[in-house]
Amino acid sequence: MGRVIGLGLGPGDPDLVTVRAQRWLSRAGQVAYFRKRGQPGQARRIAQAWLAPHAQEYAMEYPVTTELPVDSPDYNGLLARFYDDWVERLEALAEHDDVVVLCEGDPFFYGSFMHLYERLRRRGRTALEVVPGMPGMVGCWWACGQPMTWGDDVLTVLMGTLPEDELVQHMQRTDALVVMKIGRHLGRVRRALQRAGLLGRAWLVQYGTMEAQRVAPLSEMGEDVTCPYFTIVLVPGQGRRPEIIP
Amino acid sequence: MGRVIGLGLGPGDPDLVTVRAQRWLSRAGQVAYFRKRGQPGQARRIAQAWLAPHAQEYAMEYPVTTELPVDSPDYNGLLARFYDDWVERLEALAEHDDVVVLCEGDPFFYGSFMHLYERLRRRGRTALEVVPGMPGMVGCWWACGQPMTWGDDVLTVLMGTLPEDELVQHMQRTDALVVMKIGRHLGRVRRALQRAGLLGRAWLVQYGTMEAQRVAPLSEMGEDVTCPYFTIVLVPGQGRRPEIIP
Repeated sequence: MGRVIGLGLGPGDPDLVTVRAQRWLSRAGQVAYFRKRGQPGQARRIAQAWLAPHAQEYAMEYPVTTELPVDSPDYNGLLARFYDDWVERLEALAEHDDVVVLCEGDPFFYGSFMHLYERLRRRGRTALEVVPGMPGMVGCWWACGQPMTWGDDVLTVLMGTLPEDELVQHMQRTDALVVMKIGRHLGRVRRALQRAGLLGRAWLVQYGTMEAQRVAPLSEMGEDVTCPYFTIVLVPGQGRRPEIIP
Repeated sequence: MGRVIGLGLGPGDPDLVTVRAQRWLSRAGQVAYFRKRGQPGQARRIAQAWLAPHAQEYAMEYPVTTELPVDSPDYNGLLARFYDDWVERLEALAEHDDVVVLCEGDPFFYGSFMHLYERLRRRGRTALEVVPGMPGMVGCWWACGQPMTWGDDVLTVLMGTLPEDELVQHMQRTDALVVMKIGRHLGRVRRALQRAGLLGRAWLVQYGTMEAQRVAPLSEMGEDVTCPYFTIVLVPGQGRRPEIIP
């Protein structure tokens, strides 16, 4: 009997996978990964540098990504069935050998793998393992070249999909800020930052640690920038640090 | 001329360093690391598995850790001079060869290295590089075996050193929670969790991913547990997930 392994691959640069993940990749006989239809899949791209050439691959193609509202019954039904189906297939594949599920970032931090993991755990037929990875946001604040949190700084991680007023309320109460899932929501996130008085300190990071990496102060970006999925907005903290007072 | 490299080493398990960090360690001629007086130093321990045997080592021993309040002028002065002194020594060491500064977790996430980094950057005499690492909290939520954040969950990272009322206010407004710097503050953190209605969902993780790892529901721990430095309290989120409604 094999296992299902959720393998965290970090923010994007293949050199930022862990030694453990590299070892799993080099020995993997079966790998599965999520991707949007017609795209290579970000996790698969990160794995490329280390993946065993003989590995059998299974692309798990989302039936829907941004075409439907995430809170609609149709979206819920399509995704639920998609995860249910793949859970059965992974269980079958794991009967003979380990199956490594490639995950960008960390598998337990806003990851699709968690939907498989909870189902597999509930059903209890397959042994499960998880290898943690560096979350994408860590690669993004590295890309800014600025320390992110100091002393007693409070860090808040928000999704750009939240309503503007909720974004503002959280932004007003934090010292350091990460906003993920920016996609089509940059305008709203930008307005919220402005209202919270944080726009002047905000950075936009696209494709952090990848070849296409782009970093810029958010205030210098146009209003209508189209953002790829791998976009994060950051506001570094300004907390306590020991300094000689002149 | 050499560089000063802040090298993130991840949460504790040597297998969770990145491929890039492993490469740096295996080739390092000079390494420096922080430690409490009389202790081996956590970063040095993680590096042990990969460190080149010929590396020249420099232990940067904190002049004070918990003996003085962090907001006292004495603490500030002692630490500021300590960082100032080491900046001059690292600059001198880097004149001949690279100096790798070992950092547990990620160098830009509540790390002591940031105090060196900002000083070195201001002075501008030495080339600087940073290798991001997996933050300790990621290893801790992995240790709980539970996905940490789902859907639109808000994640808040707090320091246990904050006043109780501030802790409660932040706890009441978040979906998922990390509390670091627990140390002698577990009693206060526990009271705050109770007031925010989160105690029943909270986990205590000590030495996450290390040999001494210990994970337990916080409510099952005694009131007066003494916590090592590597202690984190976690409350996993419970956000949106696609499920077939029966």
